[in-house]
Amino acid sequence: MKTAILSVGTEILFGQIVNTNTVYLSQQLNLLGYDVMYHYTVGDNTTRLKEMIDYIFHDCDLILTTGGLGPTQDDLTKETVCEALHDKLVENEDAMNKLKSHFTGSVMTENNKKQAYFPSRAVIFKNKTGTAPGFALSENGKMVICMPGPPGEMTAMFENEVRPFLEKMQDSVIFYKTVRTIGSEESRIETELLDLIDQQTDPTIATYAKETGCTVRVASKRKTREEAEKAVDEMLVRINERIGEYVYSTEDEDIEQVIAKKLLAKNLTISSAESCTAGLFSATLANVPGISAALNRGIATYSNEAKMQELGVKEETLEKYGAVSAETALEMAAGLAEKTGSDLCLSVTGIAGPDGGTPEKPVGLIYVAANYSSRAAGKDEGGRQEIVLEYRRKTQNREWNRRFSVMRMMELANKILDGKIESHKK
Amino acid sequence: MKTAILSVGTEILFGQIVNTNTVYLSQQLNLLGYDVMYHYTVGDNTTRLKEMIDYIFHDCDLILTTGGLGPTQDDLTKETVCEALHDKLVENEDAMNKLKSHFTGSVMTENNKKQAYFPSRAVIFKNKTGTAPGFALSENGKMVICMPGPPGEMTAMFENEVRPFLEKMQDSVIFYKTVRTIGSEESRIETELLDLIDQQTDPTIATYAKETGCTVRVASKRKTREEAEKAVDEMLVRINERIGEYVYSTEDEDIEQVIAKKLLAKNLTISSAESCTAGLFSATLANVPGISAALNRGIATYSNEAKMQELGVKEETLEKYGAVSAETALEMAAGLAEKTGSDLCLSVTGIAGPDGGTPEKPVGLIYVAANYSSRAAGKDEGGRQEIVLEYRRKTQNREWNRRFSVMRMMELANKILDGKIESHKK
Repeated sequence: MKTAILSVGTEILFGQIVNTNTVYLSQQLNLLGYDVMYHYTVGDNTTRLKEMIDYIFHDCDLILTTGGLGPTQDDLTKETVCEALHDKLVENEDAMNKLKSHFTGSVMTENNKKQAYFPSRAVIFKNKTGTAPGFALSENGKMVICMPGPPGEMTAMFENEVRPFLEKMQDSVIFYKTVRTIGSEESRIETELLDLIDQQTDPTIATYAKETGCTVRVASKRKTREEAEKAVDEMLVRINERIGEYVYSTEDEDIEQVIAKKLLAKNLTISSAESCTAGLFSATLANVPGISAALNRGIATYSNEAKMQELGVKEETLEKYGAVSAETALEMAAGLAEKTGSDLCLSVTGIAGPDGGTPEKPVGLIYVAANYSSRAAGKDEGGRQEIVLEYRRKTQNREWNRRFSVMRMMELANKILDGKIESHKK
Repeated sequence: MKTAILSVGTEILFGQIVNTNTVYLSQQLNLLGYDVMYHYTVGDNTTRLKEMIDYIFHDCDLILTTGGLGPTQDDLTKETVCEALHDKLVENEDAMNKLKSHFTGSVMTENNKKQAYFPSRAVIFKNKTGTAPGFALSENGKMVICMPGPPGEMTAMFENEVRPFLEKMQDSVIFYKTVRTIGSEESRIETELLDLIDQQTDPTIATYAKETGCTVRVASKRKTREEAEKAVDEMLVRINERIGEYVYSTEDEDIEQVIAKKLLAKNLTISSAESCTAGLFSATLANVPGISAALNRGIATYSNEAKMQELGVKEETLEKYGAVSAETALEMAAGLAEKTGSDLCLSVTGIAGPDGGTPEKPVGLIYVAANYSSRAAGKDEGGRQEIVLEYRRKTQNREWNRRFSVMRMMELANKILDGKIESHKK
């Protein structure tokens, strides 16, 4: 069913709140098999709200609204929806009793009473966490479902009342998986998948560029969840044949989660030595709960002095090759390995910008190195191996270069753990 | 001018991303004096997008779009806007050259080229942080401004190109300052300013709760910039009388920028030792360009072994008081001071959650300590001082607790640098 989500509230138009209701409802409705075609937001204004409802119905059959059900005079959604669907408000005895009991022992101001009035044809949805109930109202095959704006009230009402109501109305199910990749531009991923995307009817395939790498969404809409799941899984096999080398998750996980899982499963330890990123890699890895069993330490050696003292980088190396060099990156990783004995020791040094570049060492020059035990790479031959990678970025943007560096460290860690790195034995 | 924000992208309708672009643009446009009347979201579909543009123009004169400018075939915004405003696409030489240079040394797939085509009447906006430029296109007093979807690219383009463009279109000038505070709840800030807020006509005063602390925006809309600036400055004096103790910037700076400025101005050095935040403090501080002159090192000592080895925390201390204790936090800071000699040595240890809490040491228990030279506090008496602060948070949310910890370290660092900390001499 073609569906729109309509948020009501001037505060949203001022940018005062992030509209998480719409994100939640979009996810839920898609999972239930409703096609969310549009999101709309309008202020607390009867004329514009009514006009918008009329307009939305030219292409959609179902509107879910949030907001504007409360007791104050700028709460107009119920009245306006009632008018748009040619009904009138009548007092609901249950709702009035519940409202009165809610205010037992305190004064109920007169404006609260309007929360007990509903369109005469409405199906009412209880609000267990607040005072304003919701409702569904329909006319000639078009339906509006109204819910309160506070996210806690809305989600509780959706789960307890609206979802079962919507499930009864449905005849198909959508299932989707989100494939996360790293190390390739969106344009290359799309080119690899182009014939699959072009042939798509069901499952559908869509690519999205994210800061952390390109994401591919595979979705199927079928009669049953089993059928949809099977169609998605079959398509995932074909996608993996094309772009498998870049895929790190088909479960929409972040790469630090994937790395943490592998470390914990194999009982491996990790440490990092960071220059330009100054701790951002270790901090990102520590996003994952339970990482303390694997994460030994992170050393942000911003100064040359710190690189020498903490990691044993040689003064000659810094003088001869510079702090931003393959040699320094390798010595940082080696020094860290010696100090911590961690299975996987990663290092990074680079020129994040916007200043500090020279013709030979421009902003955007980044070295990522690793020094790791054979166990980390899934081998039993003993000893350690090392690798260093060079990147040259065109942007002067400090934040981007630093995040890029962290993602390259993640990519390298993941590849090592997958045994996909060919590196020379130390 | 009546304005709508139109987000383009099927991923938004699936609820896969939170639409922060709309929040940002709503805030910015309102500050510039544009009336944001509606938010719309539509998927990657030419027909529906064109229909929506036509519809929006029945009530609005300006549409800002985000998304759908990239290289892939589901990026349709430019083509559709061009069609809706009766123009045709022509190759832009500058954009093509920039695109080619971006891909120097790597392969530019054919689909990338479409990013160098624009409507013939368009004003083009450069994209310094990505490949897809934006543009403004108008017809008969109606205008569409198109920007890319990735938030980093969009905000950079808005700040550098679109905002000045929009400012020129206005007949009055809005001037505003953003006061940043730390260490107080929004409700307290609002209560302190309530009479000023209630009396407001111009300048207007608005408070916003942010993760990093409460922000107060003071804005004036006048004929000239000078008049507006004077009105804002006068109001700032009154605001500072009320809440000055919490204010760390009236220039909308992040606290790490304010701290970095003070460190660099006084030629001071800083180092950090982090447990639960695992490098997030040092990484945040390193957001600031030029910090390398002040930031010596950051040590993320996640394991007890690391705390002992790196910072000389005593085994007895860890056994007797635990890793999360005032004693451990102080020893971490002291060990760091001994090792680095940095003027300002900060440490943190806490239980971020969601697991790992006990009845005596629940999730949300955080200790922040500092060990600092008298120079850091602006005094010449020599020697070092130390302080430790305890926080007990109710939330189990790992990310929130970690960010909260970083902000408390920032708050403490800033207070020390302002000479506002009374602490016992070591």
